[in-house]
Amino acid sequence: MIDRAPNKLAKLRLAMKSQKLSGFVVPRQDEFQGEYVAAYAERLKWLTGFSGSWGTAIVLARKAALFVDGRYTTQVRKDVQDRAYSFHHLIDEPPQAWLKANLKKGDALGFDPMLITVADARRYAAACAEVGAKLVPVAQNLVDYVWKDQPPRSQKPLFVQPLKFAGKTAKAKLNDIRAVLKKSNADAVFIAEPSSVAWLFNLRGRDVPFTPVVLAYALVHQKGRAELFIEAERIPSDVKKALAGVAEVCPPSLLTQRLKEMARKKVLLDEGSAPEKVRQVLVSAKALVSLAADPCTLPKAQKNPVEAQGARDAQIRDGAALSNFLHWLAVEAPKGQLTEAAAAAKLEDFRKATGLLEDLSFETIPASGPNAAIPHYHMPPGGGRKINVDEIFLIDSGGQYRDGTTDVTRTVIVGKPSAEMKDRFTRVLKGMIALSLLRFPVGTTGAHIDALARANLWAAGLDFDHGTGHGVGSFLSVHEGPARISKVSHVALKPGMILSNEPGYYKPGHYGIRIENLLLVQEAQSIEGGERQMMGFETLTFAPIDRHLIETNLLTRDELHWLDDYHARVVTLLGPLMTGEALVWLKDVCSPFTHNQH
Amino acid sequence: MIDRAPNKLAKLRLAMKSQKLSGFVVPRQDEFQGEYVAAYAERLKWLTGFSGSWGTAIVLARKAALFVDGRYTTQVRKDVQDRAYSFHHLIDEPPQAWLKANLKKGDALGFDPMLITVADARRYAAACAEVGAKLVPVAQNLVDYVWKDQPPRSQKPLFVQPLKFAGKTAKAKLNDIRAVLKKSNADAVFIAEPSSVAWLFNLRGRDVPFTPVVLAYALVHQKGRAELFIEAERIPSDVKKALAGVAEVCPPSLLTQRLKEMARKKVLLDEGSAPEKVRQVLVSAKALVSLAADPCTLPKAQKNPVEAQGARDAQIRDGAALSNFLHWLAVEAPKGQLTEAAAAAKLEDFRKATGLLEDLSFETIPASGPNAAIPHYHMPPGGGRKINVDEIFLIDSGGQYRDGTTDVTRTVIVGKPSAEMKDRFTRVLKGMIALSLLRFPVGTTGAHIDALARANLWAAGLDFDHGTGHGVGSFLSVHEGPARISKVSHVALKPGMILSNEPGYYKPGHYGIRIENLLLVQEAQSIEGGERQMMGFETLTFAPIDRHLIETNLLTRDELHWLDDYHARVVTLLGPLMTGEALVWLKDVCSPFTHNQH
Repeated sequence: MIDRAPNKLAKLRLAMKSQKLSGFVVPRQDEFQGEYVAAYAERLKWLTGFSGSWGTAIVLARKAALFVDGRYTTQVRKDVQDRAYSFHHLIDEPPQAWLKANLKKGDALGFDPMLITVADARRYAAACAEVGAKLVPVAQNLVDYVWKDQPPRSQKPLFVQPLKFAGKTAKAKLNDIRAVLKKSNADAVFIAEPSSVAWLFNLRGRDVPFTPVVLAYALVHQKGRAELFIEAERIPSDVKKALAGVAEVCPPSLLTQRLKEMARKKVLLDEGSAPEKVRQVLVSAKALVSLAADPCTLPKAQKNPVEAQGARDAQIRDGAALSNFLHWLAVEAPKGQLTEAAAAAKLEDFRKATGLLEDLSFETIPASGPNAAIPHYHMPPGGGRKINVDEIFLIDSGGQYRDGTTDVTRTVIVGKPSAEMKDRFTRVLKGMIALSLLRFPVGTTGAHIDALARANLWAAGLDFDHGTGHGVGSFLSVHEGPARISKVSHVALKPGMILSNEPGYYKPGHYGIRIENLLLVQEAQSIEGGERQMMGFETLTFAPIDRHLIETNLLTRDELHWLDDYHARVVTLLGPLMTGEALVWLKDVCSPFTHNQH
Repeated sequence: MIDRAPNKLAKLRLAMKSQKLSGFVVPRQDEFQGEYVAAYAERLKWLTGFSGSWGTAIVLARKAALFVDGRYTTQVRKDVQDRAYSFHHLIDEPPQAWLKANLKKGDALGFDPMLITVADARRYAAACAEVGAKLVPVAQNLVDYVWKDQPPRSQKPLFVQPLKFAGKTAKAKLNDIRAVLKKSNADAVFIAEPSSVAWLFNLRGRDVPFTPVVLAYALVHQKGRAELFIEAERIPSDVKKALAGVAEVCPPSLLTQRLKEMARKKVLLDEGSAPEKVRQVLVSAKALVSLAADPCTLPKAQKNPVEAQGARDAQIRDGAALSNFLHWLAVEAPKGQLTEAAAAAKLEDFRKATGLLEDLSFETIPASGPNAAIPHYHMPPGGGRKINVDEIFLIDSGGQYRDGTTDVTRTVIVGKPSAEMKDRFTRVLKGMIALSLLRFPVGTTGAHIDALARANLWAAGLDFDHGTGHGVGSFLSVHEGPARISKVSHVALKPGMILSNEPGYYKPGHYGIRIENLLLVQEAQSIEGGERQMMGFETLTFAPIDRHLIETNLLTRDELHWLDDYHARVVTLLGPLMTGEALVWLKDVCSPFTHNQH
């Protein structure tokens, strides 16, 4: 099949010319900056063929550049056939540096101010200014202009996240946000982040795959109303009822007008999520724009007791589905006939059989043998690789349930492991246990504890090149801020946050290992003789950890006890949801290593 | 004795009035921002009586405030008799906030621009500006003006740090700095930090206690000369010879003139150490001031192989002196007649007996019983507290030798420890061993590994309120930047850095524990199967760790092996420097816990 990209690029350049633009920026993001975007917003993929979840193209009259991060440096070369593009590493050669080298005085770089955040626009504008060029907002996205068969925007109805799962009314949440506004002496806050809007109004949507966010903006006033900008036809009667007295539903076409009414008022904007367009409208209307972090981010991350209980319930349900799958895999895989695709499909079947699965929380990563060495492996179309005997199989997956979002990775050996595999698996497990057992004081950040998950790998001259954990939403995004467990995360861990704990080890061309549980941050129970309030993690995820890959000589007494105790809880919690051969298998693979069990 | 402070304050206020100033800032720092200052520069102590190493007074016509950090909130109340001062916590109530509340429009706040850094002056100026007041530099320090018997400035001669200890010529170091200037496209750098000047020119001085820095500024030009601003009479002939062709010695009175000659040239300034005065002179001379970190800081911290070997030699010598002291203490203390002062004096005697002690590296902290619970305990005048039987005795001390600076803490029990003391001591020890054994990848910072020294305390609901470690100079400051092991230290650890490893535990009113060794960062030896270059720590400090305080049941096999191996090396390295009863004692207290010794 002949790739159509050259043609597209030529059309885009014609559009640029007609608007007197020297260039145009095409980010992967839509106007909601999400990891997943709806079909109509796949502009970067349409234009270039690149299918990754993060990237930006910059098209000039004679040059075109595509910037992707470390995950996609190989993939971009496969995806993009058009030789007109040069490929750049987003961090090593950022777009701003490329622009400084390729724009000249008097050039006009076009951009869609709905797709570029306030912070990004500032960076682009600074790069342009350095060479005497300027950054010019366009009224209509040039890709939309040339994309003839662009899919329509989602008109899927919203639905209510009821109090029994949300744990707090929208009214109460809005009152909290208004208290923040009062403290900041602000008249209103513009909320652009779709998971914040979903959380704040206890709503969910089905516009993008995997993530039930609400693709809508909101404007919350300190006094009086909150406005939710969304098409009225997407609001079913029960949602309308739920929003009565909580928010005014405004058509998106009214957004500019409502922003203009903020003249001489102080409006908070989050520069990392708000579109530059919103800032420009507010500034030209003489509103006082104050950049501040989205006030929903922290309360959304700190799950309330109802959400925490929902998470526990969802993880147990999901863990039973995963355990049924692992039992099936233990029976079928040694026959040597399974493919990655068949495994992923079977796991989805088990999840669906719970009767409560809303969606997967991301595309399942079913990685056999050397594919497991690619942390962000995407199975190609077709059946994927065969699952061979005496190879490792890693499966990273999760589900969206109304009561919670799951994310779990298990690594198993089909057949017999090598001594090296066992050594590496056990070191990864020791790191994972170190975090599971950790108690830590108030103020501790992810950057402070990330090393605890790595020290046993470091001791052997090994490491892994991703963070140890990310935040997880409550029937929301599987990647949720503000806290992470990584070297660069300086946000304090607070009670109610859910974080993944997923150290790994990757041997390119051979195999990979990752073990992932979700953890809930909690105030730790006080200990006799303890002097300070500590926090700790409650493990939320339950599913067997493959004992064939564990070298018990490398485990300390405390680590063995954690493992036996964990497996005992797997049986206690999942057993009631499992039956027959699978239950027998579960009890077997969860039997303890040590005898002094309690 | 009647305190003279009220009188001093009145005199200072008269001086303020004569200069039409509404207030005056009196920092503890001298013009070199050091932790230790010469007698003539003890302005804050003279004015207020406060004897801590960090603090600032702000005197207004009717109010006076003294700002100290957490170490000194108790001491300041003892030191300062004058009720005219209000006391404030430096972090909770910073001077800038106090100024905003107490200055009014039109006020003029005086300050000595030689004593206040560029960064601090900016903060003061911003606070003044917010209330419509202004920050006004004075030509003569008002305290000097009213301090009639102010001691004279040091005229002690400098001396050369020879190549056999410095490991690199001043010429070679200057070439490195000039390469930095070239890369920054700068014409010159002004160096204000006295340890940088000492390091760069391979000079040392005896102007301030404990730290052999050179109280002088330097101006290093990219092309041509380097200027060292110091009185010619302080340069003996051998120093003059060493500086020939390296630096031009200029009288300090020429500084302003030389700065003015930088018109239209780009000059680098470190805002954290350069006096605001220097910036003002440069700016008014139309030089282009560029704020940048002192380029000596990093190379000074990364000790070269000669300095590293010097450190090893110095620590072994110092460890033998400390071990002789610990033996003496083990014999004498159980008699119940020793005082803290007697112990500190005896330890100094043992250090002096090496024949190579230049100075202590800080005032010895000899803390018995509850005094050990005060991390920064300063023994009061007189003999200090008695060292009682069945109490803990903590001694934190160090020496300055030509080949290296030492800093070591040992905590011992006189008589019998309680079970709690053993538990706490062992948890502190486990943290200390965790860092000693750690291997870590390039880019790791102190913030990443600080938790490893605390996790065993956290597990029991305990913690300590100071960083785990600080940098240490090479016959220079015992507190040296840029790296530390603390939650807020984001500087990567690099080969050659020397850091202390000193976790602790403090039970106010009862006892305290701290164990401190110095560590040298090194590239770690590669391990079979290892894939990445790791770094690790070489332990530099050798002296017995009190086995009576160790609960061996709490130690893992690896920790026990580290301890036995460490004690075996103590005997091997210190044994040849010790004799008689002390040597017999050393071998006894260093005997292994386990039998599989190599």
